[in-house]
Amino acid sequence: MTALLQLSLIGIGTGNPDHVTGQAVKAINTADLILLPLKGEDKADLAGLRRAICNAALTNPATRIVPFDLPQRDPATPDYVDRVNDWHDAIAAVWADHIHAHLAAGGGANVALLVWGDPSLYDSTLRIAERVGRSLPMTVQVIPGITAIQMLCAAHAIPLNDLAAPVVITTGRRLRGHGWPQDADTVVVMLDAGGAFSTLDPAGTEIWWGAYVGMAEQILDHGPLASAGPRIVATRAKARADHGWIMDIYLMRRQGVAPQPS
Amino acid sequence: MTALLQLSLIGIGTGNPDHVTGQAVKAINTADLILLPLKGEDKADLAGLRRAICNAALTNPATRIVPFDLPQRDPATPDYVDRVNDWHDAIAAVWADHIHAHLAAGGGANVALLVWGDPSLYDSTLRIAERVGRSLPMTVQVIPGITAIQMLCAAHAIPLNDLAAPVVITTGRRLRGHGWPQDADTVVVMLDAGGAFSTLDPAGTEIWWGAYVGMAEQILDHGPLASAGPRIVATRAKARADHGWIMDIYLMRRQGVAPQPS
Ligand SMILES: C[S@@+](CC[C@H](N)C(=O)[O-])C[C@H]1O[C@@H](n2cnc3c(N)ncnc32)[C@H](O)[C@@H]1O
Ligand SMILES: C[S@@+](CC[C@H](N)C(=O)[O-])C[C@H]1O[C@@H](n2cnc3c(N)ncnc32)[C@H](O)[C@@H]1O
Repeated sequence: MTALLQLSLIGIGTGNPDHVTGQAVKAINTADLILLPLKGEDKADLAGLRRAICNAALTNPATRIVPFDLPQRDPATPDYVDRVNDWHDAIAAVWADHIHAHLAAGGGANVALLVWGDPSLYDSTLRIAERVGRSLPMTVQVIPGITAIQMLCAAHAIPLNDLAAPVVITTGRRLRGHGWPQDADTVVVMLDAGGAFSTLDPAGTEIWWGAYVGMAEQILDHGPLASAGPRIVATRAKARADHGWIMDIYLMRRQGVAPQPS
Repeated sequence: MTALLQLSLIGIGTGNPDHVTGQAVKAINTADLILLPLKGEDKADLAGLRRAICNAALTNPATRIVPFDLPQRDPATPDYVDRVNDWHDAIAAVWADHIHAHLAAGGGANVALLVWGDPSLYDSTLRIAERVGRSLPMTVQVIPGITAIQMLCAAHAIPLNDLAAPVVITTGRRLRGHGWPQDADTVVVMLDAGGAFSTLDPAGTEIWWGAYVGMAEQILDHGPLASAGPRIVATRAKARADHGWIMDIYLMRRQGVAPQPS
């Protein structure tokens, strides 16, 4: 009788190996197989970083690490959601192939993937796992990790929310398309291809920005959006050129614009 | 010359000692003094849990743990924000007293507080530290921890966000006063004194609920809000009566109601 496949999605934080939790270390060391995607969407060498974090945590010599090439999105598919869905199907097929090969070779039933930050936040690993599960019976275990949002707030030593107030987490694309969300005076923006905040009226708004948060390359800036905004655009362009890639995130707060509690 | 005081606010997760990060373990063990609040607002024995998590991580015999009584909010102050601000002032005064006594007795300059979850999320420790800093020069270091939001998503193995879509994090009080936020189809509710979701039209909405997430007592439920809502209200009341306290959190998602990208 073969044991039911267990797929562990392990959040590893956003680049600081010290942010790995005890639970993640245990899960890394009970994995029989760790699938390691080799190339991300961007030019960031996340594969190298993931590998370094994994090596720092791994003490079990029996754990196999298997790198694999991540399929690319098909730019010929016009619709964004269709394009992403097709891409997830392609990744799921690659995972399934590797898992089948591993099991066929007599490998154990604990398979793991290391997820940047936390698996729940703007990450497709859970959606891909759901696809794999359609043809391969398995249980999915999610291990939380420190997100870029937490790391941004920690680096600036700021609270995410105003006292008992709501927060919106959104994307650069959405901020450009919709402007400042209706219902909150605090907005966190991720997945911004660059400077979506420039489309806002900066009056009364402060910004806390971070690139490569939690990593050795970390850069922070903070100030009124009117003056800090253009400075951040310039810093970002330079950092991106210097490193060949960038990951950045920001929190903006404005004063007393949202409707007050009824 | 005395070293500048360093205050470390250490996120410890929401009750699972395995969620403590390597960085938090190091910070706990470099602290000269750890201030441990004895009583919270609610009846939860968070002091006992904090102490257990601390003991599990602490190997440095020189670290002093000093419990202190948390001042209570003054119910005579009518305004919510005033009441909380006064309360934070009172807590800051107690911290400052303990830190002064510790330093006067020749104690070292690393002082730490263990924060439930992450210090940035609906937590007042940063605001209190800011008050202490007005009279006691110090640097503040924030160490992120796993939040109840991440633990809820991990326990249910669900993503926080729909594909590239925004999320609102809010409070039970705010959900009651304002209804479903304008700008997102996913809402996370914290600090709910009980069943704020009952004030919504449940049509087309799903709920994922968790109490004591990450802890031995963890209870989960999930389903369409129309049927799961009343069930959760009953489960919550029973759990609260059984344990004498409760901490719960939920995520709700509705389908295709928010305005589409322009
Ligand atoms: C695909 S999402 C993954 C988020 C991740 N799951 C998390 O929990 O933080 C990638 C986005 O996260 C943010 N991000 C991730 N790591 C970051 C880092 N080290 N510094 C700044 N932003 C980061 C950026 O906004 C980036 O566009
Ligand atoms: C004062 S806030 C603190 C949040 C904390 N800083 C965090 O990062 O999760 C307390 C609220 O967090 C949520 N919460 C904290 N711990 C929880 C747990 N173990 N289970 C369920 N909800 C929890 C509940 O909504 C509770 O009302």
